[in-house]
Amino acid sequence: MASRIAVDAMGGDDAPEAVVVGAIQAIRHTERDLAVLLVGPEERVQDVLDNHPEAPSSSLQVVDAPEVIGMGEAPATAVKQKTNSSIHRGLAAHHDGMTDAFVSAGNTGAVMGASMFILGRIPGVERPSIAGFFPNLQGSSVVLDIGTNVDCKPTHLVQFAQMGTIYARLALDNDDPTVGLINIGEEPGKGNEQVKEAHDRLQEADDLHFVGNVEGGDLLLYAADILICDGFVGNVLLKFGESMTTVLSEMTEQEMDDQGLGPEERALVTGVLSEVRKHFDPESQGGAPLLGVNGNVLIGHGRSSPAVIERMIHAAAEVASVEVVGAIEEAFRPDAA
Amino acid sequence: MASRIAVDAMGGDDAPEAVVVGAIQAIRHTERDLAVLLVGPEERVQDVLDNHPEAPSSSLQVVDAPEVIGMGEAPATAVKQKTNSSIHRGLAAHHDGMTDAFVSAGNTGAVMGASMFILGRIPGVERPSIAGFFPNLQGSSVVLDIGTNVDCKPTHLVQFAQMGTIYARLALDNDDPTVGLINIGEEPGKGNEQVKEAHDRLQEADDLHFVGNVEGGDLLLYAADILICDGFVGNVLLKFGESMTTVLSEMTEQEMDDQGLGPEERALVTGVLSEVRKHFDPESQGGAPLLGVNGNVLIGHGRSSPAVIERMIHAAAEVASVEVVGAIEEAFRPDAA
Repeated sequence: MASRIAVDAMGGDDAPEAVVVGAIQAIRHTERDLAVLLVGPEERVQDVLDNHPEAPSSSLQVVDAPEVIGMGEAPATAVKQKTNSSIHRGLAAHHDGMTDAFVSAGNTGAVMGASMFILGRIPGVERPSIAGFFPNLQGSSVVLDIGTNVDCKPTHLVQFAQMGTIYARLALDNDDPTVGLINIGEEPGKGNEQVKEAHDRLQEADDLHFVGNVEGGDLLLYAADILICDGFVGNVLLKFGESMTTVLSEMTEQEMDDQGLGPEERALVTGVLSEVRKHFDPESQGGAPLLGVNGNVLIGHGRSSPAVIERMIHAAAEVASVEVVGAIEEAFRPDAA
Repeated sequence: MASRIAVDAMGGDDAPEAVVVGAIQAIRHTERDLAVLLVGPEERVQDVLDNHPEAPSSSLQVVDAPEVIGMGEAPATAVKQKTNSSIHRGLAAHHDGMTDAFVSAGNTGAVMGASMFILGRIPGVERPSIAGFFPNLQGSSVVLDIGTNVDCKPTHLVQFAQMGTIYARLALDNDDPTVGLINIGEEPGKGNEQVKEAHDRLQEADDLHFVGNVEGGDLLLYAADILICDGFVGNVLLKFGESMTTVLSEMTEQEMDDQGLGPEERALVTGVLSEVRKHFDPESQGGAPLLGVNGNVLIGHGRSSPAVIERMIHAAAEVASVEVVGAIEEAFRPDAA
């Protein structure tokens, strides 16, 4: 069956160029029968497309959206006022069944807000959540929440664990994903009030493979497949981890200067380090799924390159095909227990 | 004037050996007129001392404390029941004026609890706080709180900023330390309820050089001299950062294997990386000050080596000589405003 993905052509620092190129590559580099709707100001998007004669035009369609929500705009206002933005029109296309998913590397808060408004929450889900990815020595863990819910109740944390588990099972092919609760100590009873209660509830939940508390020092060592925390902690940790790409290279440059290394020696060290840094690079991820809304939405980093846009589009097609939304609906149905 | 420092001889994974050796080195490696009281089970400590004929015996004294609080013991119970522990007796010696400071690499919670009990809080300080150190590209920032206060009110965060400022001015020779609030965005109005209110109060405080919110991605890039957060966030971040020492070396080993580097090439890469890793190594710090109690207390990492114990003792002598406690007392006096 064909996959149709709506993409926010104006999302990200290098939009629309990077998005258009990413969409072209996504179509060329897949076995899937894939079509992409590029949503943005028609003329601007078409101009970029015209510069790419290699574009597979039968699989690409431009959907006009005259307004653009900037990366720095206040989401609440933008969501209310710019209802003809690429984010709104892209989500509307998905909501109306024209596409299987919506993908944006634009203003995260606006995508979140407009998704709530246009797609709505899945019944039973109290707080939709953006799931991020955290590197570890085995690959990566899914982290919820990474910034949308900064004041969380224990019940929200439990719901994050449930949605993350469903996502990992279906979209990441992990039959039995383990869940860890980010905390200041391993023993039960550690932590603040919110986390202590969440720990007990996670332990009681029989649809989760809960492995207990996970300390900050164990996050990168592969402590669990899914890591649970409120959006404040998740956001600070995620950005801290991402900054390692810059920090490591600056510290290494400094140290190589101090040691007076020659060009060949520097190339050798940098050759190893640049691979190590990639573990921390948000570019290596394919977009963060917004879980709990009534649709398939993937959100990318503002600095997304064409390669990242390509990965996001493929990931969106995958998320849609495994029917994550249906599975969350099922699990959260009041009579499901 | 002579400095006299009480040291928990049983504190840390390699106690008492590492502590005794660290104390001997501390006395030998300073211009200061320094005496150390080794507090612990008399025979055990004396046995270690007897194996070190180089010990400057006139500057070393063993103070008997028959009980030991283990690293993994529940602090609340241990503080109440083991009143003859090295932690209790060491703090008592400091409280009675026999020493200028107390230093321990033992059970952090027990040192904190016993300090509150024996030394008491400085009037006006609602929550004493352990200040940690965070590496950055310029050196390091002071972080409060790093784990003692996991449920904080905005007023506690403001007090952390005030105590941290006094500490940095006096003990770190920083005339005008900047204060940043760890948050999920730079703009005022970002964050959870606790942090939003703290932001406004920090901005109003005229005894602080507040530079605003600091995101997770900027912490390592030198965003401020003093970083403020609740103990939950601080603890998770601190341990996450410390884990970089292990994580970096494992990732690098893996990568060098993948690239098939020879022994000389590996030695070159490792020679650079081991210096980079040191930025994240808790061993490179000299103990975290417990601020807000009525005395000078420094707490070290459980894995403290003799070199760290030595640095902690020197740091304690410094903290005592610049009279941090007196300055906090002054600033928090009700009529001080």
